Amino acid sequence: MNRNSHHVVVVGAGFGGLEFTRALADASVRITMIDKRNHHLFQPLLYQVATTALATSEIAWPIRHLLRKRKDVTTLLANVNGVDRAGKNVLLEDGSAIAYDTLVLATGARHAYFGHDEWEPFAPGLKTLEDATAIRRRILLAFEQAERETDPARRWALLTLAIVGGGPTGVELAGTIAELAHDALRGEFRNIDTGQARVVLIEAGDRILANFAPDLSAYAAKALERLGVTIELGRAVTRCDAEGVVFGDKQLAAKTILWAAGVAASPAAEWLGTPADRAGRVLVEPDLTVPGSPEIFVIGDAAHVPRPDGRLVPGVAPAAKQEGRHVAATLKARLAGDTSPRPFRYRHDGDLATIGKRAAVIDFGWMKLTGWPAWWLWGLAHIYFLIGFRNRLAVSLSWLWIYATGQRSARLITQGDDDKG
Amino acid sequence: MNRNSHHVVVVGAGFGGLEFTRALADASVRITMIDKRNHHLFQPLLYQVATTALATSEIAWPIRHLLRKRKDVTTLLANVNGVDRAGKNVLLEDGSAIAYDTLVLATGARHAYFGHDEWEPFAPGLKTLEDATAIRRRILLAFEQAERETDPARRWALLTLAIVGGGPTGVELAGTIAELAHDALRGEFRNIDTGQARVVLIEAGDRILANFAPDLSAYAAKALERLGVTIELGRAVTRCDAEGVVFGDKQLAAKTILWAAGVAASPAAEWLGTPADRAGRVLVEPDLTVPGSPEIFVIGDAAHVPRPDGRLVPGVAPAAKQEGRHVAATLKARLAGDTSPRPFRYRHDGDLATIGKRAAVIDFGWMKLTGWPAWWLWGLAHIYFLIGFRNRLAVSLSWLWIYATGQRSARLITQGDDDKG
Repeated sequence: MNRNSHHVVVVGAGFGGLEFTRALADASVRITMIDKRNHHLFQPLLYQVATTALATSEIAWPIRHLLRKRKDVTTLLANVNGVDRAGKNVLLEDGSAIAYDTLVLATGARHAYFGHDEWEPFAPGLKTLEDATAIRRRILLAFEQAERETDPARRWALLTLAIVGGGPTGVELAGTIAELAHDALRGEFRNIDTGQARVVLIEAGDRILANFAPDLSAYAAKALERLGVTIELGRAVTRCDAEGVVFGDKQLAAKTILWAAGVAASPAAEWLGTPADRAGRVLVEPDLTVPGSPEIFVIGDAAHVPRPDGRLVPGVAPAAKQEGRHVAATLKARLAGDTSPRPFRYRHDGDLATIGKRAAVIDFGWMKLTGWPAWWLWGLAHIYFLIGFRNRLAVSLSWLWIYATGQRSARLITQGDDDKG
Repeated sequence: MNRNSHHVVVVGAGFGGLEFTRALADASVRITMIDKRNHHLFQPLLYQVATTALATSEIAWPIRHLLRKRKDVTTLLANVNGVDRAGKNVLLEDGSAIAYDTLVLATGARHAYFGHDEWEPFAPGLKTLEDATAIRRRILLAFEQAERETDPARRWALLTLAIVGGGPTGVELAGTIAELAHDALRGEFRNIDTGQARVVLIEAGDRILANFAPDLSAYAAKALERLGVTIELGRAVTRCDAEGVVFGDKQLAAKTILWAAGVAASPAAEWLGTPADRAGRVLVEPDLTVPGSPEIFVIGDAAHVPRPDGRLVPGVAPAAKQEGRHVAATLKARLAGDTSPRPFRYRHDGDLATIGKRAAVIDFGWMKLTGWPAWWLWGLAHIYFLIGFRNRLAVSLSWLWIYATGQRSARLITQGDDDKG
């Protein structure tokens, strides 16, 4: 690769960043991929790690292994601190700088607490592998402590698990936690009955899965209730602390609270010094460039991209991938001398969410699917999209095993406060 | 189960504690199993987690799941603080006490630094899942940092990995790390050649695998050198710090140092206020009871058990299991009215160690085995001894995959200092 060729720096090896890099396979550019983690994460299945169904290595892959055959790509594990737009440099935490000709920021999102960051220790969210193992640890420890707790009120608080947010992540967490407690763990304790554990899903709006058609929301609510999940609608959470969660006039004593209610973008807007929306997403031009810097693109969850009907492009993997492909095509056109603007158009394929291991809802718009056909389609689609063949095989095996036996393989409590894992 | 029946408390669900509990399946006693972790760990394969070949959940199982069908067993996740021998109570960290009629301490060992605990941050040992993921993180991060390091001396220190201790664990770590660097990671970096990484095995004695026959030691040394491991014999380590490791007159600049040199028993002797050997192992009677307390047994790595020839019963899984079965038989005899002393006799089946993925050494005494036949026998034996069928399948799959493709599935850097995983 010619050291003088066009240098593209990509920050973030999520769905958007990786897809962009792939689509640029035959372009005559040098690419540097920077990520603060060494692995790409298949986030749609992260809740299954948090609920003991899958092992961490089944949904994550080393980035440099994924890109090993791309001799045009250098992978760096590094923390980005800022962007020098005038000098065209990405600034790293260690003080070094990396010059770019084109910069693609695909830095994703974290969970947000609507200005209440003090809730985070009591209500962790789910975005990274560490989040998932921490939540797994929290859920399993609650049952362990309940087994030893003699005070009935405290025992009830330990056996109460609250999930805040009725979107797909909240619904998937609630369903699998209910199955874990009411099914997989049953019979393994002597002083408690995990079948009595309360799983409560709290949603501020008037229905769960608000992005789906109303009849699918109603179906999902029924399916969740069949699994033993209590759904609380119409009241927003106003406090989370060591005692539990307060929503509206209700106080729920719960030692385990999980946060699935909001996301906030990464600090890309701060790095750029460019306007962002309330959630921190960069307000990009229709071609996904940053205003005033046509050589900088922002894609995926870090970007605020309006659709013609006024709604935003959603923060899902297919959207990030479409944006990655679009930016790659734009860059190739530019390198070929065509600098005409190329506005991005989002194609929405559908929404889907699973409810435990036998039901799911899929909303394609033109078609709706529920029950076990939806669940099987969901399972096949996710196995298909898993990147490595090795992981497809391992995940299929894990799921078949759980499906057939109800046993889960990743029920490990690790990384306690005193284990500097 | 009759609440008034004989109550047996077991502390530690390692090989010894679990085997004891199993052997007591048909006895009319109540059993309480206490462990400070929620999982039984298959320690012989822990080095494979540390070197990215296996996932954590492939070698660990929830204790209460293993014992779920044993309605006579209550499993508690708890930290033990001491033993009240006079009152026959196990004292827990939370202030509560658990009364016993018979107590079995099977609390295992940690690594020891011969009075130099200040070395631990620079030279971590390998006893728990957290140890393994921390070591995995350390090894992978060294290569990531080397890829970005421009100073040649610092880059060499990052590409130098030292293993202290030439026993089976040290040999297995050195062999798999050499394969990881020289084989699996090769071609994935752009600024370094991991094939140049130095893996140095440091042993104070005059040969590695000192417990084996000399010709097997020599074979293992040759096999390691073929994998690119440098073996340093005859000089004890006198310092470990951020710069590297000092042994004899030699100073080796190494950013990654792993400790496989010594074990120290758990605090069981302190709990009991009874004499221990230099490594902290309880000096037990020939029947494995504690002097003066015939109702307390100590088994496994926590016990100092001499053999007729003066050597000690080794700290390996088969020894712990034999002791567990012996104590169970003793207890059953006692419950039947036979209180005659029953001295424990150890039967040594052999020693084995693997060197990378194509060689191993096995010393049965009456037969010695090297090369790929030993490796295959080692692999089959370990799969056979893995407890859950699910894990046998998963581990077999992982190994076949690595064997066939050289790819490793668990190359994840998680749990950084700022990730409170």
